[in-house]
Amino acid sequence: MSFVDIILKKKAGLPLSASEIHEFAVGAATGSVPDYQLSALLMAICFNGMNAEETTTLTMEMMNSGDVVDLSSIHDICVDKHSTGGVGDTTTLVLVPLAAACGAHVAKLSGRGLGHTGGTLDKLESIPGCSINISEEAFLEQVKRVGCAVIGQTQNLCPADKALYALRDVTGTVGCIPLIASSVVSKKLASGAGAIVLDVKTGSGALMHTFEEAVELAEAMVAIGKKAGKPIYALITGMDQPLGTHVGNALEVKEAIDILAGRTAGDLLEVSLELGGSMLVACGRAADVKTGKEMMQEAITSGAGLKKFAEMIAAQGGDARICQDTSLLPTAPIQVAVPAEKDGYISSMDTTAIGYCAQRLGAGREKKTDVIDPAVGIVMRARLGDYVHAGDPIAVLHLRSQDQAETAMESLQKAIRIDVNKPEVPPLVYACVSSEITQYAEGYQSKG
Amino acid sequence: MSFVDIILKKKAGLPLSASEIHEFAVGAATGSVPDYQLSALLMAICFNGMNAEETTTLTMEMMNSGDVVDLSSIHDICVDKHSTGGVGDTTTLVLVPLAAACGAHVAKLSGRGLGHTGGTLDKLESIPGCSINISEEAFLEQVKRVGCAVIGQTQNLCPADKALYALRDVTGTVGCIPLIASSVVSKKLASGAGAIVLDVKTGSGALMHTFEEAVELAEAMVAIGKKAGKPIYALITGMDQPLGTHVGNALEVKEAIDILAGRTAGDLLEVSLELGGSMLVACGRAADVKTGKEMMQEAITSGAGLKKFAEMIAAQGGDARICQDTSLLPTAPIQVAVPAEKDGYISSMDTTAIGYCAQRLGAGREKKTDVIDPAVGIVMRARLGDYVHAGDPIAVLHLRSQDQAETAMESLQKAIRIDVNKPEVPPLVYACVSSEITQYAEGYQSKG
Repeated sequence: MSFVDIILKKKAGLPLSASEIHEFAVGAATGSVPDYQLSALLMAICFNGMNAEETTTLTMEMMNSGDVVDLSSIHDICVDKHSTGGVGDTTTLVLVPLAAACGAHVAKLSGRGLGHTGGTLDKLESIPGCSINISEEAFLEQVKRVGCAVIGQTQNLCPADKALYALRDVTGTVGCIPLIASSVVSKKLASGAGAIVLDVKTGSGALMHTFEEAVELAEAMVAIGKKAGKPIYALITGMDQPLGTHVGNALEVKEAIDILAGRTAGDLLEVSLELGGSMLVACGRAADVKTGKEMMQEAITSGAGLKKFAEMIAAQGGDARICQDTSLLPTAPIQVAVPAEKDGYISSMDTTAIGYCAQRLGAGREKKTDVIDPAVGIVMRARLGDYVHAGDPIAVLHLRSQDQAETAMESLQKAIRIDVNKPEVPPLVYACVSSEITQYAEGYQSKG
Repeated sequence: MSFVDIILKKKAGLPLSASEIHEFAVGAATGSVPDYQLSALLMAICFNGMNAEETTTLTMEMMNSGDVVDLSSIHDICVDKHSTGGVGDTTTLVLVPLAAACGAHVAKLSGRGLGHTGGTLDKLESIPGCSINISEEAFLEQVKRVGCAVIGQTQNLCPADKALYALRDVTGTVGCIPLIASSVVSKKLASGAGAIVLDVKTGSGALMHTFEEAVELAEAMVAIGKKAGKPIYALITGMDQPLGTHVGNALEVKEAIDILAGRTAGDLLEVSLELGGSMLVACGRAADVKTGKEMMQEAITSGAGLKKFAEMIAAQGGDARICQDTSLLPTAPIQVAVPAEKDGYISSMDTTAIGYCAQRLGAGREKKTDVIDPAVGIVMRARLGDYVHAGDPIAVLHLRSQDQAETAMESLQKAIRIDVNKPEVPPLVYACVSSEITQYAEGYQSKG
């Protein structure tokens, strides 16, 4: 069967066979199928979809198109966590040390910031001395000894996904559930995960535009896990405002430490506990999510989580003293308060715009070659539903240069809407998806 | 706007603007848009279509992407005709000299055989000495002096269409009405036509699988003509059996001459008169199709059409004596009758299979580099609805070598179905489409 027949088959709405999907993935990884045929098939998949069988096959084929990290020497189910990307969303830095403190093993390969969303690697690199480039041997040794490690990809993981991802970006085929699901899960499986907890964001700062799409993506990924024999749990969580109050690399590290130290609570903590609770269930350390969350909370109270974070930082060459003294983190020379323009309730936020505002300050990259400024960012002072008076600081900009103040202030004021009516504040956790059931927060089932 | 936004717009089902379609066509012609983006957009067009405005814009953009033949020195509306391709379908060789004999000017750029369908250029080249490679100057001079010329493309016509056509072939995006319509009409307009008559085939030997699709394609092309200000008429004609009785290059020239000489009638004549009648209307030589057909018929009776064919052949360097003595055409050394396998009615034919059978005998090319044998082919001896007895010759193979006989006989017998029940014979002309109205043959309106 020629590749054009495979395209025609999908165009006609028929499911592809395992060998056809193999040809697709191998063709993408090796370049043996030209890009123009791959992109035609990608577009046909956007229109006609892939069933759970096809999506799982594509996931496994992409995983097997390159190296697969071997975590067998750790002698435990290594549990991983992945977020579809958010703003002020530094759950990884909170829950990885907490989960390790609860006995779990987390061998995590993380990514960099993309578009308006932050990236764990960039955040870790804002810690003086901390390295995310570690040999596989040292990585495994650290996970065994400390219980956790968070590093960048070193191996040739999922070259098929890499090729297809790059092609999707330039051919308008990014927004397609089976393609997103297989891309996410293939990378997690290739990084050796034995169990995965996914955080699928919904809301104004999320990749998925609607709640329904978020549920569909979560269910697609959980279904892959079931077929692939690896437990995958997914939470649908809100991204209608930055999750934490801090947006920016060192700022987010500081907030994570404040949470681990028990000094700060709020949405970031709550979502971290939910995800962490599920992780402890996924790797068999807790019988249910409630118990898992209690264990995580106890690791905060006891200080074990913060201690674990310090161990991890030290193991990766970083200055662990930041865990006791966050002023050792890079700080921006200029801080400018952003005043509310009028009295009223914070009724909605364009979270994507807030993310891009932080990016433009230097917290993210517009071009791949841009250098990140670890110190800059935004600290939010108001959350959805809060009542503010005109002139109240709704956020504080952390700037490298005063020149940036005016534009940033304007875009933030534009992104944060103030209204006379008290808004309905959306839930933090919309739904929990497991291979058995999708549980919705009250009032959201009907929308699912 | 980046090209990926254009893809996303079409993917979302929105019509593209003129400048976006300009970017598409110029990008294809010059290579400034990479193939993988073009193919993603082509696939999105397959799913979401293009409206009449977009299709016309694409047509004009493809036309203007290269040279446009200037026929203004002819001082008449040059009328052209195009068929979507058939088997034993040599209407061009019949109607071009007849139309010229009726005073029309036909400056025709033709194509070669493709797949199972024959090509006018290949047929003309089977005439000893006849050339289809003529300079533009000589071409115009011939049309002025003789009234008609049929040659191959020499100029750089429609490079955007050429690029997209090649890409469609390998990306599963051939079968898409707006893309087919714009491809056909752009080439005709670029070849300078002032009015066009289209022969859209339907049936077992046609590109369009269903009658409904044929009507849709015809209406799309006629709509382009209306928007572009060039009269386009289309007929939907049957291709459920070879149109003429002769399939093969010199064989089809012979049949055309027999018709022009008034020695042969049948479906090929009938469709040629219908198309030719419309051509005379399109270029203003006849008030209505009925009158046009009568004028064409008169050009047969008077011998003016055959004389015009001889003039055209002579002008293109060919041996015009074939018009009086068809035995001067190349003939195959071996003729083998194909017997009916049983008594019964000829109930259906796989016309595509008959076309491929002739191709394999050497009448067409499997690969672009194959050399055509002008003499070989098939002469059909039975038509749909005919009653035959077992052993009756239903066709005669004209072969270069006896080795070909057995396989060809088997494929022909397989392609021609004999049944005890008398079949309903489909009409020859299913519908006539003009910018005002689509007129259906009796019993076909409801299907349209």
